[in-house]
Amino acid sequence: MNSKLRVRRLGIDTYRENVVYMQKGCRLCKSQGFDVLSKIEVRFGRRSILATLNIIENGMLHEGELGLSNVAFRRLGAPEGATVMLSHPNPLTSTEFVRRKLDGIALTRGQIFEIVKDIAAYRYSNIELTAFVVACAKRNLSEREIVDLTEAMVANGEKIDWGLPMVLDKHCIGGIPGNRTTMVVVPIVAAYGLPIPKTSSRAITSPSGTADTMEAVTNVRLSLPEMKKLVMEENACIAWGGAISLAPADDIIISVERPLSLDSEGQMIASILSKKKAAGSTHVLLDIPIGPTAKVKNRSDARRLKKLLESVGRKIGLKVLVVYTDGRQPVGRGIGPVLEAVDVLKVLKNDPSAWAELRDLREKSLMLAGTLLEFSGRVAKGQGVGIAARLLEGGQAYEKFMAIARKQGPLKVLTRAGHSRLIRSPRGGRVVSIHNQKMAKVARLAGAPTDPRAGVYLQAKVGDFVKKGTPLFRIDAEHEDELHFALNYVAANDTIVEVRA
Amino acid sequence: MNSKLRVRRLGIDTYRENVVYMQKGCRLCKSQGFDVLSKIEVRFGRRSILATLNIIENGMLHEGELGLSNVAFRRLGAPEGATVMLSHPNPLTSTEFVRRKLDGIALTRGQIFEIVKDIAAYRYSNIELTAFVVACAKRNLSEREIVDLTEAMVANGEKIDWGLPMVLDKHCIGGIPGNRTTMVVVPIVAAYGLPIPKTSSRAITSPSGTADTMEAVTNVRLSLPEMKKLVMEENACIAWGGAISLAPADDIIISVERPLSLDSEGQMIASILSKKKAAGSTHVLLDIPIGPTAKVKNRSDARRLKKLLESVGRKIGLKVLVVYTDGRQPVGRGIGPVLEAVDVLKVLKNDPSAWAELRDLREKSLMLAGTLLEFSGRVAKGQGVGIAARLLEGGQAYEKFMAIARKQGPLKVLTRAGHSRLIRSPRGGRVVSIHNQKMAKVARLAGAPTDPRAGVYLQAKVGDFVKKGTPLFRIDAEHEDELHFALNYVAANDTIVEVRA
Repeated sequence: MNSKLRVRRLGIDTYRENVVYMQKGCRLCKSQGFDVLSKIEVRFGRRSILATLNIIENGMLHEGELGLSNVAFRRLGAPEGATVMLSHPNPLTSTEFVRRKLDGIALTRGQIFEIVKDIAAYRYSNIELTAFVVACAKRNLSEREIVDLTEAMVANGEKIDWGLPMVLDKHCIGGIPGNRTTMVVVPIVAAYGLPIPKTSSRAITSPSGTADTMEAVTNVRLSLPEMKKLVMEENACIAWGGAISLAPADDIIISVERPLSLDSEGQMIASILSKKKAAGSTHVLLDIPIGPTAKVKNRSDARRLKKLLESVGRKIGLKVLVVYTDGRQPVGRGIGPVLEAVDVLKVLKNDPSAWAELRDLREKSLMLAGTLLEFSGRVAKGQGVGIAARLLEGGQAYEKFMAIARKQGPLKVLTRAGHSRLIRSPRGGRVVSIHNQKMAKVARLAGAPTDPRAGVYLQAKVGDFVKKGTPLFRIDAEHEDELHFALNYVAANDTIVEVRA
Repeated sequence: MNSKLRVRRLGIDTYRENVVYMQKGCRLCKSQGFDVLSKIEVRFGRRSILATLNIIENGMLHEGELGLSNVAFRRLGAPEGATVMLSHPNPLTSTEFVRRKLDGIALTRGQIFEIVKDIAAYRYSNIELTAFVVACAKRNLSEREIVDLTEAMVANGEKIDWGLPMVLDKHCIGGIPGNRTTMVVVPIVAAYGLPIPKTSSRAITSPSGTADTMEAVTNVRLSLPEMKKLVMEENACIAWGGAISLAPADDIIISVERPLSLDSEGQMIASILSKKKAAGSTHVLLDIPIGPTAKVKNRSDARRLKKLLESVGRKIGLKVLVVYTDGRQPVGRGIGPVLEAVDVLKVLKNDPSAWAELRDLREKSLMLAGTLLEFSGRVAKGQGVGIAARLLEGGQAYEKFMAIARKQGPLKVLTRAGHSRLIRSPRGGRVVSIHNQKMAKVARLAGAPTDPRAGVYLQAKVGDFVKKGTPLFRIDAEHEDELHFALNYVAANDTIVEVRA
């Protein structure tokens, strides 16, 4: 029985979905009854993957060859040309649980663990993943199910053990461009003497993640031993978390959740808390910005979320404290890796702008740092912000930041992008809103975060009075093309910065 | 602003999903912010498609080229090398309705029409389609929503007008191998003088569809004018319906529904009735087989389905009559295009086997034909089966079938496949069940319907007494390989034919 084929990496990026390619009319397809979109099990020695079949008829594959998409090739781990076995996979029992959940029947802890295990092993097709995401969407998960989902995500991935009794962390639920408080908060807390090892993410749909902004200053690709050494010596690191596979099922789920723009309370909570738990944190301060173009639109939604986050946190052994912040506009002035790094350094260096145009970034950072200090139990209530302000103004926070940055790698010089254009107010009046998502999109179109110097610099913020022709923001780009993409988007969207007469 | 690329057909079959392929690191991807799995609008002149992006890094594409999957290429209709424009598509408003339905809010008629229109125009990604399927799955659609969905599917496709006051039709909800009653019923009804133009489907996951079995005898690829001429002359045709695009949204929805094995009452009803309505039928007899391995497992589910089918039918102007039939095992003996055609011809020719091993096929066909005759109102209650039997036994049905078959194309000679193997009973006893899906799978693995002569011939049926070693069924295949695939499956599944001592 000949169900063997030779492996070829076709160099096709299908994101997270395993896809295998077979030649049209190939004997094996016919005899095995493999159809387009069939799920196929591919075995190499003792490793195996499940993949979705696409059929190729362009002669790219020869008889006896099996093409693999990039992720499928990497996950199978077979060298090019190796012989693999193909078969019909046993049906996943866990997809039956998904169907049951769609019927409105709550999932048991065991069922949730089995589902997450299959997802983390890349055994779900995008269609099956979507069914799971939809089954859990909105408010379809009970608190008990969210706890189980969070713990299942932690269990199916790596975990960091810092060997410390207390590990502080902070996290923003996202959606606010320029919101780089982490890079101010971490050195303040570390300068006070408390451990706060940050494993940050890169931008996925935003113009910059904390890892991208930190990378504008220094290296962020640290191994776990390097992080541990840094935390031992400086109490902190600001590294990219992607080198360690923390709660990987979460990333897989997000890959289909995002294109659906589906709100999913349970998944969001499980996503945030599983990453923090896996990262070895014990005390997590969560920042929920509230605003019309933020993720959370009103106080009542924020309260519900806060209650669930704190309660689920408690049940998985994580101390969670939630604060509400102003999410009505971007924080600071720069949006994009380098532009944000410049803002952060000005605040850390006590540049006069930290009390002027960067006041919101400075004050938010101090509030978060102070809250975190008090949350640790090492600083009395009401003392946190004052202590944080002294560490910042006294230069200890800056020194700490520079010590961390130097130990992570060689420092980089921050420069301006090659092309800039000012966007001016079409009328005189007061700035009443800056649209978070739309402004993020302008920065992305300008090239951020791929081009670290690209992005947006806000020249006016909510509450400012402007005249007709006063610059509202500046677009920075490396190439004329990108600049024009951003300018075209701005021309087509007149509500990015709203000025009311 | 350079968002133009030259089109290349890459020859990749992605089933029904439009996929475009761009070279990794291509300027356009970067500047437009196109990511893997982004939805992209591709325009050629006044035509445009939405497609999902995959990234290629193997040098298969040159700078300035855009690769298209087969369906995307066909739907866009641009010649190879033509210049196309790329852009971010406007978000579909109809996916917002899907999100609302997921929230439990009923869809309005207008919303359902907009969703189906976008689906029929291939504007939904597989992820979005899955969300819609799940939102409508199980019993999530009200009767009113099912009516709207059915009518929306009819509206977004072609329709056949036979120019006749009454057009009879029959349909089985499926799941029973060998169930080729249509090829007996149609000539009986046509011989009586009533119009019954059949547009049948090919097998998708079964070993043969009516169109496949009829194709074993003659041509089934008829144009609409050819069908109309045949119906005028002979009252009937038995043609493949795929040449006319009847309710195409249904096929698209089924493409993601099937891999989920999700029961969806509303979608099933809309699927059946929209095809019949679009095909111009006025009186539809629906056959619901009931059995443990049939689609409908028990009387109570069957009654619910019957009530909905008849009621939705009435509301869309279709007379629907439902009959329950025995779904505990395959009908007839042969499973696979040629093997089934042989059974059908024996029944039509009044071969002695029609009263012996093919009795179930003959009796079911007569019951359905008789019911249809009475349903037309032209035959009194209680007379139908008698009239049908006389038309069959008198040879008029056979003559009618041959007249239709000859006019559809040259007749084919039915022969046996090259390889056969008997599967014998491991013990003496009584045959208590034959598993519909598993037996279908054996026939498919043997090569049906791709190899028309491949399949299964049942040597024993439920109720038969067998000795140890008595043949239970025969597997026919064209190639040794396929025969072995089927044999291996049989060896691993001991409950395909259950014999109890």
